[in-house]
Amino acid sequence: MDQVDLFHAEPASNSLKVLQAIHEKGVPFTSHYINLTKFEQHDPAFLAINPAGQVPALLHRGRVLTESTVINEYIDAVFDGPQLRPADEYDRAQMRIWTKYVDEVFRPALSFLAWHRVIPGMVASLSAEEFEAKLARIPLREKRGKWRLAASGGFAAHDLETWRFQLEDTARRIETALANGDWLVGNAFSLADIAVFAMALSMPKTYPEFANITATPRMLDWLQRMRARPGVAAALAMPNHSNLPG
Amino acid sequence: MDQVDLFHAEPASNSLKVLQAIHEKGVPFTSHYINLTKFEQHDPAFLAINPAGQVPALLHRGRVLTESTVINEYIDAVFDGPQLRPADEYDRAQMRIWTKYVDEVFRPALSFLAWHRVIPGMVASLSAEEFEAKLARIPLREKRGKWRLAASGGFAAHDLETWRFQLEDTARRIETALANGDWLVGNAFSLADIAVFAMALSMPKTYPEFANITATPRMLDWLQRMRARPGVAAALAMPNHSNLPG
Repeated sequence: MDQVDLFHAEPASNSLKVLQAIHEKGVPFTSHYINLTKFEQHDPAFLAINPAGQVPALLHRGRVLTESTVINEYIDAVFDGPQLRPADEYDRAQMRIWTKYVDEVFRPALSFLAWHRVIPGMVASLSAEEFEAKLARIPLREKRGKWRLAASGGFAAHDLETWRFQLEDTARRIETALANGDWLVGNAFSLADIAVFAMALSMPKTYPEFANITATPRMLDWLQRMRARPGVAAALAMPNHSNLPG
Repeated sequence: MDQVDLFHAEPASNSLKVLQAIHEKGVPFTSHYINLTKFEQHDPAFLAINPAGQVPALLHRGRVLTESTVINEYIDAVFDGPQLRPADEYDRAQMRIWTKYVDEVFRPALSFLAWHRVIPGMVASLSAEEFEAKLARIPLREKRGKWRLAASGGFAAHDLETWRFQLEDTARRIETALANGDWLVGNAFSLADIAVFAMALSMPKTYPEFANITATPRMLDWLQRMRARPGVAAALAMPNHSNLPG
């Protein structure tokens, strides 16, 4: 089997998403750790790999792949190992609705709320000039705006409320899906479980009001089932040098 | 070949996306037109098909598929006809990066700006009670918030500016991609062209400052090339009863 080079941060969020797929498939890979607390994702060396300055990125046969959701479908299609996408096309569509929901709703809600909580403290250690210098190196304009807003604690109250509603709704959707079986789609482990787990694993600690033994017992069992998988466990055992939110 | 039932609105935006795929593949289908200006997407009859109250929705072998991007991959995988996804998995990943970009950046930017322009006038014809009654029937909470904000002309200036930047950036990305060939990915027509065209077709009229013969000549040629395809032309010839933005 070919090997790949994976550029990633902590086993959390989008990096964890791809680390799980790689370990579950058993794809041989060289790990390149990108330290987000040192803003290494904006270093010229990494921008040469992914001009958008975002992890994860995958190098395979001289070509670079980006976007964790797209990378995971690529990994499943190209490499040997257990199939991570349902064979039935209707189930595969349901899997994609989950991975899309993670990208469009679940992950942004978690991420904005984490930024709201953590970034002002992180930025407080920088002078105004240092902060602007860091900002100037961020390739994506939307990301710069997000940093600036988060640093000033400036998210709108109705946005904060919407994101919290979305997290509550996500926990409810997970719980409902698990009424039909052990996994989110078609009673088989898939990229849907991988994508949702990458964002949901800390919810019982960070959002116990939404994910708890009374409101979401099946979700809590599923989180344990996920952690017990050798591939997922191996992904979670990758280096974790920071507590930066995804 | 099986037939399908397609629930859709005008040949624009997400409905146009699926109409193009169906016509390009030559899938026999029964058209069910959902009139968005009459809020038929929130009628109980349609909510029984898609509880999220969104078009398009596809009924095939007794099962309902939603989300235009997911539907198009399903159509291509399940039905005979020309392949709409590149055979090479790297190219297929690039196709998915485009369809994801349309869903996460291009379409929201267009849609929010269109709402900002059109909805206040549409809502002005309703009493406050009528407006609230319409809102109460919208299943998705985020959509209700979007209606309320748009109706009051209440989008933030920095959001409006970001969306306009994103449209300009999208036109630039299309122009850059077309430097390599006639189509967006791997020199072959694909779901990437279909997804981008569904949103971009009116840009030379509605945003001539971003899409014009000087700034984006290749994009303008490509729009003509798209319109000349029999499948795309057949999709565009479907009933158009309104000028509601997507």
